Amino acid sequence: MPDWAAEAVASQRAELSHRYARVREQTEALCAELEPEDYMLQPVEEASPAKWHLAHTTWFFEVFVLTAARPERAPYDPSYGYLFNSYYNAVGERLPRSRRGLISRPTVAAVLAYRRAIDDEMAELLADRIDHRTAAVIELGLNHEQQHQELLVTDLKLGFWHNPTKPAVWPGVAAAVDDGSAAPPRWIEVPGGLRQIGHAGSGFAFDNEGPRHTTYVRGYRIADRPVCCGEFLAFIEDGGYDRPELWLSDGWAAARSGGWRAPLYWERDGDGWMIYTAGGIRAVDRGEPVCHVSFYEADAFARWAGARLPTEAEWEIAAVELRQGTTGPFLESGRMHPAVVADDVQPTLKAMMGGVWEWTSSPYVGYPGYRPAEGALGEYNGKFMCNQMVLRGGSCATPVSHIRPTYRNFFPPEARWQLSGLRLAQDA
Amino acid sequence: MPDWAAEAVASQRAELSHRYARVREQTEALCAELEPEDYMLQPVEEASPAKWHLAHTTWFFEVFVLTAARPERAPYDPSYGYLFNSYYNAVGERLPRSRRGLISRPTVAAVLAYRRAIDDEMAELLADRIDHRTAAVIELGLNHEQQHQELLVTDLKLGFWHNPTKPAVWPGVAAAVDDGSAAPPRWIEVPGGLRQIGHAGSGFAFDNEGPRHTTYVRGYRIADRPVCCGEFLAFIEDGGYDRPELWLSDGWAAARSGGWRAPLYWERDGDGWMIYTAGGIRAVDRGEPVCHVSFYEADAFARWAGARLPTEAEWEIAAVELRQGTTGPFLESGRMHPAVVADDVQPTLKAMMGGVWEWTSSPYVGYPGYRPAEGALGEYNGKFMCNQMVLRGGSCATPVSHIRPTYRNFFPPEARWQLSGLRLAQDA
Amino acid sequence: MPDWAAEAVASQRAELSHRYARVREQTEALCAELEPEDYMLQPVEEASPAKWHLAHTTWFFEVFVLTAARPERAPYDPSYGYLFNSYYNAVGERLPRSRRGLISRPTVAAVLAYRRAIDDEMAELLADRIDHRTAAVIELGLNHEQQHQELLVTDLKLGFWHNPTKPAVWPGVAAAVDDGSAAPPRWIEVPGGLRQIGHAGSGFAFDNEGPRHTTYVRGYRIADRPVCCGEFLAFIEDGGYDRPELWLSDGWAAARSGGWRAPLYWERDGDGWMIYTAGGIRAVDRGEPVCHVSFYEADAFARWAGARLPTEAEWEIAAVELRQGTTGPFLESGRMHPAVVADDVQPTLKAMMGGVWEWTSSPYVGYPGYRPAEGALGEYNGKFMCNQMVLRGGSCATPVSHIRPTYRNFFPPEARWQLSGLRLAQDA
Amino acid sequence: MPDWAAEAVASQRAELSHRYARVREQTEALCAELEPEDYMLQPVEEASPAKWHLAHTTWFFEVFVLTAARPERAPYDPSYGYLFNSYYNAVGERLPRSRRGLISRPTVAAVLAYRRAIDDEMAELLADRIDHRTAAVIELGLNHEQQHQELLVTDLKLGFWHNPTKPAVWPGVAAAVDDGSAAPPRWIEVPGGLRQIGHAGSGFAFDNEGPRHTTYVRGYRIADRPVCCGEFLAFIEDGGYDRPELWLSDGWAAARSGGWRAPLYWERDGDGWMIYTAGGIRAVDRGEPVCHVSFYEADAFARWAGARLPTEAEWEIAAVELRQGTTGPFLESGRMHPAVVADDVQPTLKAMMGGVWEWTSSPYVGYPGYRPAEGALGEYNGKFMCNQMVLRGGSCATPVSHIRPTYRNFFPPEARWQLSGLRLAQDA
Repeated sequence: MPDWAAEAVASQRAELSHRYARVREQTEALCAELEPEDYMLQPVEEASPAKWHLAHTTWFFEVFVLTAARPERAPYDPSYGYLFNSYYNAVGERLPRSRRGLISRPTVAAVLAYRRAIDDEMAELLADRIDHRTAAVIELGLNHEQQHQELLVTDLKLGFWHNPTKPAVWPGVAAAVDDGSAAPPRWIEVPGGLRQIGHAGSGFAFDNEGPRHTTYVRGYRIADRPVCCGEFLAFIEDGGYDRPELWLSDGWAAARSGGWRAPLYWERDGDGWMIYTAGGIRAVDRGEPVCHVSFYEADAFARWAGARLPTEAEWEIAAVELRQGTTGPFLESGRMHPAVVADDVQPTLKAMMGGVWEWTSSPYVGYPGYRPAEGALGEYNGKFMCNQMVLRGGSCATPVSHIRPTYRNFFPPEARWQLSGLRLAQDA
Repeated sequence: MPDWAAEAVASQRAELSHRYARVREQTEALCAELEPEDYMLQPVEEASPAKWHLAHTTWFFEVFVLTAARPERAPYDPSYGYLFNSYYNAVGERLPRSRRGLISRPTVAAVLAYRRAIDDEMAELLADRIDHRTAAVIELGLNHEQQHQELLVTDLKLGFWHNPTKPAVWPGVAAAVDDGSAAPPRWIEVPGGLRQIGHAGSGFAFDNEGPRHTTYVRGYRIADRPVCCGEFLAFIEDGGYDRPELWLSDGWAAARSGGWRAPLYWERDGDGWMIYTAGGIRAVDRGEPVCHVSFYEADAFARWAGARLPTEAEWEIAAVELRQGTTGPFLESGRMHPAVVADDVQPTLKAMMGGVWEWTSSPYVGYPGYRPAEGALGEYNGKFMCNQMVLRGGSCATPVSHIRPTYRNFFPPEARWQLSGLRLAQDA
Repeated sequence: MPDWAAEAVASQRAELSHRYARVREQTEALCAELEPEDYMLQPVEEASPAKWHLAHTTWFFEVFVLTAARPERAPYDPSYGYLFNSYYNAVGERLPRSRRGLISRPTVAAVLAYRRAIDDEMAELLADRIDHRTAAVIELGLNHEQQHQELLVTDLKLGFWHNPTKPAVWPGVAAAVDDGSAAPPRWIEVPGGLRQIGHAGSGFAFDNEGPRHTTYVRGYRIADRPVCCGEFLAFIEDGGYDRPELWLSDGWAAARSGGWRAPLYWERDGDGWMIYTAGGIRAVDRGEPVCHVSFYEADAFARWAGARLPTEAEWEIAAVELRQGTTGPFLESGRMHPAVVADDVQPTLKAMMGGVWEWTSSPYVGYPGYRPAEGALGEYNGKFMCNQMVLRGGSCATPVSHIRPTYRNFFPPEARWQLSGLRLAQDA
Repeated sequence: MPDWAAEAVASQRAELSHRYARVREQTEALCAELEPEDYMLQPVEEASPAKWHLAHTTWFFEVFVLTAARPERAPYDPSYGYLFNSYYNAVGERLPRSRRGLISRPTVAAVLAYRRAIDDEMAELLADRIDHRTAAVIELGLNHEQQHQELLVTDLKLGFWHNPTKPAVWPGVAAAVDDGSAAPPRWIEVPGGLRQIGHAGSGFAFDNEGPRHTTYVRGYRIADRPVCCGEFLAFIEDGGYDRPELWLSDGWAAARSGGWRAPLYWERDGDGWMIYTAGGIRAVDRGEPVCHVSFYEADAFARWAGARLPTEAEWEIAAVELRQGTTGPFLESGRMHPAVVADDVQPTLKAMMGGVWEWTSSPYVGYPGYRPAEGALGEYNGKFMCNQMVLRGGSCATPVSHIRPTYRNFFPPEARWQLSGLRLAQDA
């Protein structure tokens, strides 16, 4: 049992029941305005229908908590294991991902009933004494569901955008825009030396955030805020998408074959640019952080800007050390990113953690000494440690309680449908 | 104005309003038990979601009748032309077929409201005097909608089958099965000579059914009933799917790449075979007509059986001439094909017209002197006259009023999701 | 034994040996100027490397003549059956077509040695008495090799054109061009009625040219010469490639996905058009027959011109009947098509047979009563009778002795690398 | 100018001419037994034809040395820039990689004449005083050509294997096999701490081998020899290719879609396994290092063995530190890997550098402070720093003078046609 689990048991058991209810409600709140057909949208294989997210997060508690606690327990529905397992090979066969959009039955109503039933069973369980391991798995399940809350936002946004008429997901969200340009970014110097990174001590963390370990970094500079749309527009206008010398070879190929001329969701409108947001289409705000760029675009932009992306160690060190001084300049430059969701998802924001996810230059691999858990839960993170890049921070769609400096998000370098932006760094 | 249109005006105007209401109701009746999510299913590009069928057939009346009658009329919804145009280039841009499954908005409820509104407008129009041309286009629209009723059945069946749990479309339909084997087929001799085929005279027909014209046929024999499942099983058991000499070259390639080992919807069950029907999964009935085979399979079966498929001229001549004597043997061998739908779709059946569609050996081309109509409606049939094979007859999912001996159905030779079987022929 | 085979035995046996030598030499003469690397080119799956053509035509004689005559005979090389079988399933496994370009061994020299060895064995066989059947198969083999001579020309042309520097296949061939525009075409009237088409009586023919049979045609008009480049340019300039109403649905899709803006091998040069020929690149000659168009382009052109393509019956009837009067106008409008090869391939030409192959509106199916031969040779024609369109006539790359009015060439409707043009027809 | 370049000028200018001649000769020696057609083989897009390797390495000297020295110099052939540029965007347009197999012209003879002509120009240049920068670029060109020598070996092997009859590339090479099983591997302990890795000081190195920099490693163990075929067989027999829990997610998908059941070039032979080598097909030797495995297979094997792959830092530290003691056990376990080439390619071997390339667990990224060169040569390494994994060591096909402990080879994780094996590591 990891440290955070022990702590969970000692101090938080009383709160677990409350937290369970809150997280589960939040997932459904995100879907409050959807029509049944909206729950079916799967515009690309990588995105999942909303219905699937609702059911899969529930299946997680059913299998890893309820059935684990009572192996003789009959499954709620024998077909759900096949339908709603995402990738846990150790738990059995599963539906190919590309066919999640064909699950018209069970209906949304049936899936919501499934949620009710599992929630009731969980409430019973939580009313009893639960052991450390069970508490730890429940905590994992809640963090897992919070990850799916963010995916629910990004997948719905993509699905609605593919809808030929591009309706808004949440019509009220598209905030009025103050297109004052952002103040120029400032460089923060960080001295080199031996440091510790990775999760330690108290609180929940995913297995890939540890072990905490020593690393050696050289001195570097890091920008006090993410790159803004106005800056990215300058890259576009300077021919950034037409200059192969700025791009990684694979990135150039991806940009060509995908016909990329701007971030995802941008479209030309005469001389200007419009952007599709979850609240509908509006003008690009030059002062907001650029978002929905791939790693390749982030990397090309950085090269064009005479800088580079930070490594994940550099990012984490800056996030941790500079936060100590709560007046650090980059902590105050935060600005609400209105592209996606409303205040009820995330009321307060900081530029470094909560505006946009920030691509780093680090491929996603295990930390020294990393070892996945035994059993099916060991498939959670480890088996994806190839062909993906680490993002750090968190976006305005990330649940606030879910954000922490050691969090390692990861996506393939060509992914654009996440709320991904960038922050610049330089050698000292 | 074609002859049938003149007649339509003279004798049927009074009935047109009644017929309009009945056809439109029947379309919705087919969807009575669907959940909103079921309306979204598009398992392959060739199939369309039920929602799309409901809206597209309505759009047809809106554009070709209502707006044609009053060009200044505002469209019901400006986006519907883009969303629900199937292939009429002359009417404007349209959604790529492959993305019909992404139309979560308008919702089913909105599409049903659209149907109501257009039906109301149509009722007003039908209450007035309408000219010949308008009556003809309404008649075309109703026949068009009846075609989509059959597609609705076959597309829903395919969609539900792709649903990972394979639910029944209409749970009550799967009739009890009498697995007495069918009586051996008998050959009917038809003498050769000059004949007339194609539509003539009274009643509605599509443009591709004419002009009626002279053709020369040699004497031939035609079976008095379609090929049955028991016979097709013998083909399978004789290695039919493993013997390239029985297959057309393209057919062999399609069978290999598609992994075909039996008709679509069949699956092995120990020593026997089960079949997925719109009513659920049940055992194959050796006496029922084989169905859901491609042209390639039909052609290979015929070769294996020492016979061939009839040409469409041979089929039509047999259907017309032999029906004259109402006691012709092949008219009495009819047998309900329970694979798809219930009695309310089609109460009575004849083997030649109403059991299964029958592949012919004729590629789909225009008859001598064929000329498509002017304008957008000219796109109805003519532009598909390549790479397709003609099917004749009609299936148990074909509306009865829609079946006639000159009807030319057509699908690509690899298509299997239609209710397609075959009947054998031989040179005399 | 078919009629032509009997005749072959009676009158031609003496000549067979001579004819064998001539045909075999002609194949190699076509390759006289190639470099060893040129023999490897396979730019698309449908085209075969020259080396493969040389070996495959030889393998045909080895298997169907030599080994058929002496079954105990050891094969020349046991691997050649696998390498050089084109599609005869009855003769055993074979190399996938797409990999013919990877046969670096045997080398060209080894393949030429193979030809020598089989030719020697054939010479011995031909010196003896041979039976009717053997003579018939040899005649088939020679006609088969002549077909491959034409493919050798079209495949080499395509291969050299894909070569990034587009070298000429035969540098001397590109004739000086007389760009006087062709005289306007004239319509020839052909009365309707019952006719006979298909091969009969004397001389070799492929099985698909028979049985000779009765067919009924309506009166029609046919143009006295093929469509010329100047006329096709008018189609291009009138937006022919941008007007979907002119195209079959599948044709429109093929033109879009292939980016077609002109026939294959044409390229813009300022205001004019250049054309790649086997002799190199030169200006388009407005008076020469248009060539390297697909069926889809031919069909769209005909629609644009207010005409249609002839059926194959119409084409054959015109070719036979109008040739009777040797002064028929369309027989004299012949003009050398310099696009491909030099005079030694085909010294004299007629417009209808020998300029360009002419697409007809007829899908390729068997004639009434058609039955393939028994055994492997039965795979020669019959199994391709689907998804292809008939072309009639012959091109300047077709060996003269190979051209006859009943000859049925066939290719998929999207094929453009053959020497395919068109001639217009109209209803009377 | 980097350090190694300065040294090159000071001490090696006299030798550069000699070295140039030797490297260029060695490239052609590898092709001595090829037939012209063999030079055309391009079985997959990633591999290049031998002819292309011969020309491209020559083009490198022409453009980056000769034309750089005299910008007014006319190119040897204006089309060669287009044909033989591999990926230098800054130098102009280039042929798509997938079409390199269609360059039948220039012929092999013409390419060899090109080599002669450039070699003559280079000899003239080398006879004069050359400046530091020119000497550095020549040294880079020679190392570049040595890289292509190894690719020539692996690409020819793949091309000959795709040749349907699988001829040997070098028939004499397949050494007799001593199938005594290798002695069990031993673990070498390496203490943790701060270390320096990367190239420093004297001698040529690619830009990606620097800057030399500090890194922190934890204590670890590394095996004294690479994994052998016998050990890999045990993995296969233990169901290694059927157990998803052993594989990375992308690796499992690659293994499934590629149908992997063993390393590339292995094939079942009854109960045993045969292996295709450049010398032909022979039995697998249980004692030789396993080769032609992807990163995914290497990673899965390591997990199965209860170990892991070393990082590239761990590998380099072991290679450098343990070589100090020349009696270190893992330096003596070297064994000739007869899978590919004969002694004349590489006469002596060490297990760690020269048997097989060894996959590491490190994604290929730039070292801290890495900055590509200015201009076209800056495209040499930097732009590939994504989606690839680092391999260390060198293979029996790697020129001996080319092997050094800091050398960073890199390939995508699914690549199998390189001489890639693995060595195990563990946490201390």
